[in-house]
Amino acid sequence: MYGLIEALKAKVDSDGEQVAREMAYYPHVLGSPELREYTSAKLKEDRNIDVDPDGIVLTAGSGESIALLIQAITDPGDVVLTEQFVYGGTLNQLRKFKADVVGAPIDDKGLIPEALEETIKKLTAEGRKPKWLYTIPEHQNPTGSTLPDSRRREILDIAHRYGMPIMEDECYIDLRFDGEAQSAFRELDDSGIVMHVASFSKLIAPGLRMGYFVASQEVTERALSFKHGSGPNQFAAYAITGYLKENLHKHRDTFNPILKEKKEAMQRGLEDHFSGTGATWSNPQGGCYTWLELPEGKDISAIRDEVFDAGVGYLAGINFAPNGDGQNMARLCFAFETPEKNYDGIALLAQLFRKHGVM
Amino acid sequence: MYGLIEALKAKVDSDGEQVAREMAYYPHVLGSPELREYTSAKLKEDRNIDVDPDGIVLTAGSGESIALLIQAITDPGDVVLTEQFVYGGTLNQLRKFKADVVGAPIDDKGLIPEALEETIKKLTAEGRKPKWLYTIPEHQNPTGSTLPDSRRREILDIAHRYGMPIMEDECYIDLRFDGEAQSAFRELDDSGIVMHVASFSKLIAPGLRMGYFVASQEVTERALSFKHGSGPNQFAAYAITGYLKENLHKHRDTFNPILKEKKEAMQRGLEDHFSGTGATWSNPQGGCYTWLELPEGKDISAIRDEVFDAGVGYLAGINFAPNGDGQNMARLCFAFETPEKNYDGIALLAQLFRKHGVM
Repeated sequence: MYGLIEALKAKVDSDGEQVAREMAYYPHVLGSPELREYTSAKLKEDRNIDVDPDGIVLTAGSGESIALLIQAITDPGDVVLTEQFVYGGTLNQLRKFKADVVGAPIDDKGLIPEALEETIKKLTAEGRKPKWLYTIPEHQNPTGSTLPDSRRREILDIAHRYGMPIMEDECYIDLRFDGEAQSAFRELDDSGIVMHVASFSKLIAPGLRMGYFVASQEVTERALSFKHGSGPNQFAAYAITGYLKENLHKHRDTFNPILKEKKEAMQRGLEDHFSGTGATWSNPQGGCYTWLELPEGKDISAIRDEVFDAGVGYLAGINFAPNGDGQNMARLCFAFETPEKNYDGIALLAQLFRKHGVM
Repeated sequence: MYGLIEALKAKVDSDGEQVAREMAYYPHVLGSPELREYTSAKLKEDRNIDVDPDGIVLTAGSGESIALLIQAITDPGDVVLTEQFVYGGTLNQLRKFKADVVGAPIDDKGLIPEALEETIKKLTAEGRKPKWLYTIPEHQNPTGSTLPDSRRREILDIAHRYGMPIMEDECYIDLRFDGEAQSAFRELDDSGIVMHVASFSKLIAPGLRMGYFVASQEVTERALSFKHGSGPNQFAAYAITGYLKENLHKHRDTFNPILKEKKEAMQRGLEDHFSGTGATWSNPQGGCYTWLELPEGKDISAIRDEVFDAGVGYLAGINFAPNGDGQNMARLCFAFETPEKNYDGIALLAQLFRKHGVM
């Protein structure tokens, strides 16, 4: 927070008149021009994506981006594909706007191109041709998977053949602590079929509510028509722009290794306390979540509240399941607690699962 | 801005852990608890309105409040009443959500209760019974009028008799420099029929995007169901709460006299350059706008762009007119420029109006 405050102060010190003038008006509908300029440069440097500052729409978190884009491209009843398990916030938004959400099969690397195409064919044969695909290709929420480049290319090929736009949500892209980032769908394809969503909130602090999207001009205009007002908070935009210009690399270099330690402690806990039980779990290269899967038939959604009251929180798989499955699965968050608490929490979780007879 | 930054810093200095914890999560859907607590106390002190902090919904500016409430209580085709001339932002929102907007007659004090009832009767006879009423009772945008208490009571009586909820927009309430504030509709009536909207953006800086509404539980729940995500920017909320707790009175005592000088300079300009031309103008007790009316038949909307290019900006009356009238009227903003520029601008405006043959 002090970093953000210092950035704000430096901005007022150097551009006081501009700040006073800008703050006296509503923010630009696309959001702060300076932050869009910074975002354009960041997208080029980090993701090799070419987009003008005026092609970027800043929003109150990536959540607003997703909500606007859903409204822009979805009519009630439209079939929307997602990963088999998908971020609950997006699932709720899709349902709110009356999409018919179908989860496509995944494995530990995310969407499976062949299975995706099968799903499209099957739905189309039923008269439910999918309208578009939502995916979190990197550090997926809830499973933690990263989709390999080769699969992205295959999925793009499918998308073109079936006329199915892709909304990629890169909200966790800056939280990588292992391995290599894969190419964004938007880098691999700028034909207009790909909508790219990302966030500064996840990188710095969710309370900042600052995300953005990049889409074709037509989709962008439609999305903007659903906005309730002007662009997002100009005050937060000053702080974020100033802070990231000075500190992006340092910030990632400081916090991602801490995130890695937290994840590894959770992994050690899982190895020590879940090995040999039939459970499997993901080993993410970034993000906030590990996905735990117990053998089929073990219902850990039903006992979630009792386990929570006994001291370990998780979100049951069914919360992320458009198809209603996932009773034997759970999302474990490693980002908030210390490594020690992560390890001890997993030990306690194993004990509680045994007590409740699911393990 | 330095005041806001100091408030932020003081907050982190004193409650660093709480700040870190809160910023790590999405803001509460109702917005910052501390700012809602402050708002509850401010509503009591300034407006004699009793409402719990949990009855207040903070939003990204009052614009989001209005958009959410419109969606909560309006179906496409519903007739919504407003003042004969009404803030363009609300008019656009109403039209976006497909309301059938009808302006009710006004005079220099705002809505005229008898004429309002006549309008309701006439519309009802046509099968277009009004669903609800939107009004800016204090420092109306665009006309600058303040609705007297007695009229508010009569309008409330009408509202009850015709089952017509009232949305009162007090976004300019803190910008009073003359006269006495009148009672809010919400003070006079807490039966649930009144929705109360206000803003911190107008008071401090529009770039802050922080407004709020108070409504019945039923309407609030419906309005929240239309939100795109979580509550408004927590970062801005810290700054606003800290700043206003220390500085509200000083802020108003400092800036409202400046606003008054600006308005008076514009009034002098109008007296010196528009007297005897048949033009009339309002003399607001607060807010940002004076309303100028030329004799019927003089079209100042058609020449607006040429006058703007020659150096004087105004918004033509038709921009505020649900009924499509107002060609001979304009909204003049006195809040942004210095008193000198306001005076000189009016002198130039008279000259340009003469040149274009409308005066």
